[in-house]
Amino acid sequence: MRKIEHLGVAVTNLEETIVLYEQLLNTPCYKIEEVGSEFVKTAFFRVGESKIELVAATDPQSPIAKYIEKRGPGIHHVAFDVEDIEAEITRLEAAGFQMIQRTPKEGADNKLIAFLHPKSTNGMLVELCQERS
Amino acid sequence: MRKIEHLGVAVTNLEETIVLYEQLLNTPCYKIEEVGSEFVKTAFFRVGESKIELVAATDPQSPIAKYIEKRGPGIHHVAFDVEDIEAEITRLEAAGFQMIQRTPKEGADNKLIAFLHPKSTNGMLVELCQERS
Repeated sequence: MRKIEHLGVAVTNLEETIVLYEQLLNTPCYKIEEVGSEFVKTAFFRVGESKIELVAATDPQSPIAKYIEKRGPGIHHVAFDVEDIEAEITRLEAAGFQMIQRTPKEGADNKLIAFLHPKSTNGMLVELCQERS
Repeated sequence: MRKIEHLGVAVTNLEETIVLYEQLLNTPCYKIEEVGSEFVKTAFFRVGESKIELVAATDPQSPIAKYIEKRGPGIHHVAFDVEDIEAEITRLEAAGFQMIQRTPKEGADNKLIAFLHPKSTNGMLVELCQERS
């Protein structure tokens, strides 16, 4: 795990939360991106070498809509930057961690991603991210 | 906000979770510290310019014990590194954010800290951290 690539924050109203987070973080939102396959719309802010990613559902079947219904808005997941996502999945599975995706899939922000199951990580939802070349 | 200083993770059993996170993050825990004023024991891991801080309650009156009782273990807060914590508190209050501490207090890891109220930050518990000189 080379760095915290981003922290994912579940939000109900993307536009309102962008204005709030521009004030909170004292930096402008530099990108908004819709990820159709996940039924979410995302907004990005830079903080040092990491990003804050706001994530809003675009459809009630989105996992983000279900998360907010259950736990309310707030920190949803942490994503770590990895050099080789397939090697990292192999290493983590050998150590006993359970992946939600054993095969990486396309994520926002030009990334290959895979999530670990929070029940194997003390309740923390962890995403692995590899920059696509 | 200059960088993510650390991500705070609420845990029930510190020793077991240290072993788990050494495997997850593929890096050793480099420090364990008890913060008596907060009734917590903490353990630190480096990831890039940031840290992962495991936080376990040492007493049932600890806010961490209450948090876990309500929401289970998992990501508890994000701490941002700031150059001048008093100036940052002034800036955030002027922008309408509500501080839990208006005056910084001593935290773990040689820091001055202050938390923002999650109801003013879309449910995200945010800590400001200034390295003590």
